[in-house]
Amino acid sequence: MRAAIFRNGEIVVDQIAEPKPGPGMVLVKSLACGICGSDLHARKHAHRMVELAKHFPGRKPMDLSRDVVFGHEFCCEVLDYGPGTTGKLKPGTKVCSLPALLTAEGPQGIGYSNDNVGAYAERMLLSEALLLEVPNGLAAEHAALTEPLAVGVHAVAKANIRGGEVPLVIGCGPVGLAVIAALKIKGMHPIVAADYSHPYATWAEHAQMSPEEKAARPPLQALLPALKPALIFECVGVPGLIQQVFEGAPRDARIVVVGVCMETDRSEPMLGVLKELNVQYVLGYTPEEFAWSLRLIAEGQVDAASMVTASVGIDGVAKAFADLANPEAHTKIIVEPWR
Amino acid sequence: MRAAIFRNGEIVVDQIAEPKPGPGMVLVKSLACGICGSDLHARKHAHRMVELAKHFPGRKPMDLSRDVVFGHEFCCEVLDYGPGTTGKLKPGTKVCSLPALLTAEGPQGIGYSNDNVGAYAERMLLSEALLLEVPNGLAAEHAALTEPLAVGVHAVAKANIRGGEVPLVIGCGPVGLAVIAALKIKGMHPIVAADYSHPYATWAEHAQMSPEEKAARPPLQALLPALKPALIFECVGVPGLIQQVFEGAPRDARIVVVGVCMETDRSEPMLGVLKELNVQYVLGYTPEEFAWSLRLIAEGQVDAASMVTASVGIDGVAKAFADLANPEAHTKIIVEPWR
Repeated sequence: MRAAIFRNGEIVVDQIAEPKPGPGMVLVKSLACGICGSDLHARKHAHRMVELAKHFPGRKPMDLSRDVVFGHEFCCEVLDYGPGTTGKLKPGTKVCSLPALLTAEGPQGIGYSNDNVGAYAERMLLSEALLLEVPNGLAAEHAALTEPLAVGVHAVAKANIRGGEVPLVIGCGPVGLAVIAALKIKGMHPIVAADYSHPYATWAEHAQMSPEEKAARPPLQALLPALKPALIFECVGVPGLIQQVFEGAPRDARIVVVGVCMETDRSEPMLGVLKELNVQYVLGYTPEEFAWSLRLIAEGQVDAASMVTASVGIDGVAKAFADLANPEAHTKIIVEPWR
Repeated sequence: MRAAIFRNGEIVVDQIAEPKPGPGMVLVKSLACGICGSDLHARKHAHRMVELAKHFPGRKPMDLSRDVVFGHEFCCEVLDYGPGTTGKLKPGTKVCSLPALLTAEGPQGIGYSNDNVGAYAERMLLSEALLLEVPNGLAAEHAALTEPLAVGVHAVAKANIRGGEVPLVIGCGPVGLAVIAALKIKGMHPIVAADYSHPYATWAEHAQMSPEEKAARPPLQALLPALKPALIFECVGVPGLIQQVFEGAPRDARIVVVGVCMETDRSEPMLGVLKELNVQYVLGYTPEEFAWSLRLIAEGQVDAASMVTASVGIDGVAKAFADLANPEAHTKIIVEPWR
């Protein structure tokens, strides 16, 4: 079968072996898979990712001399079942799943693994126990946004919101937009968002503000004094950004770091001390948050469609990675390997 | 009057002008004042301290071309009152106070100021409204430990303890010992402490462990698995330490940064993300925490005497600063300017 493969630091298209479902596994067809910022990070900083894996004895790091197929934000179609499965969901059923495969050696990641092919391939394996049926006839390219939305839902859950905060979301890429969506669902109002790449009008659209809010379009400076108690979501993940937040944050601010900075960063702890800042780093989501995110999209509580700015086939993945380097051009590009 | 003065980067002894109490102020005699790690930091990194002050529009930075008299951990004796005071506490009364002076321009710090002389001078000014009478005939050199104890009390209050945590205190200097004392008062048990400078037996003494705990002396490695949920107090404040904590911390650990690192630091935010760490930076204390700390010492709930390892007069301050560079030799050195 064909796949967009991470090989020698580049994304190339080639044939790879057809996956065979083991016990408890399901062979699925990849219908739609979002390109994640982590995929861009992983291509650029693959060696750092392998190095950091040493801190997690349970995780098997990627062998960069071998092929890896990325793709962990997917919606798939059931094709065939392996041994020891119930076959409850009929072939043809659209499904989502946490990007993990339950194996005899324990759960393993899908997408940053030499063994478990991600959804930039025509077909892949999932675990039957983790399958979630896509409800309401939801389109595959929207169901594929479950994973990034779950990241936002989790970040907001970990923010320990007490009520009365005025959240500031820095960075309005897919992660920032997912955080904004989760904050709106939580009933937070107002929500302040900031992005270097988007003019205000653009991110106001993306931020799914109400028509009244869009009409008002208050400048950021006018809203800043209202940020008490301050709750700042860092959704960019580049070196120096946490230091900028430390410099700008008011006293007692809570900062939720959702953006994944792969490089060593510099900051002045003294600023954190002087302002008594709190920094909560977050990652991923729980299975419950993941399932809830799929329901939120299926029920129309989150406007997933507005996040998708392009779709490509397997041959378009390499160019899509390059295109995503310009954050003004794209939010989320969906890979459709069957094209 | 005589004072140990911070002048041109060094501590020198010289005569300075006698302070005159303004409205609401009290002239006091400095009986005892602890040398704080922040004083050592301030001498070494005075320019950084001035630079960081720009982030706090309300704070008047030190003018390093002029004299500064440090000393903010003090116990004093009332001498004379300025205008607009009640004179409730008679001359001769031993008092403590937050290191702040209430002026017409608002509260100003004592000790890192060109205007407000700290307690390394024979006499200084306090605000009557902030005076706390020293109870129970407590010795001045022990009452002077109110301020550093309050730092520990505040750090533990900000740690948001839910119960069941096994705290790890890194660094057993005065700040670490104050944190340990506050954790014991909070009923936490066991408390794990670690220090590079002290052999275990030494810091076990300092950590005010019970005789049974001292006898057991379990190695740190044996206790680490018990650190769940982990609550780590960083009480050292040197570059690289937060990164070390990030590397060693278990998943979901909460880290309270009490140590004041004046230099730019490097860390890998990715480690924080992968482990979903929480970092709470803390500084200072509330007036209530300060008053409570004085009561804890006066009532013998904290063994202040065990922290004092030496006393010096004004002429001994410069050497004491040098001596404190060796953490194995000293915990807290008390300055007695009347000697």
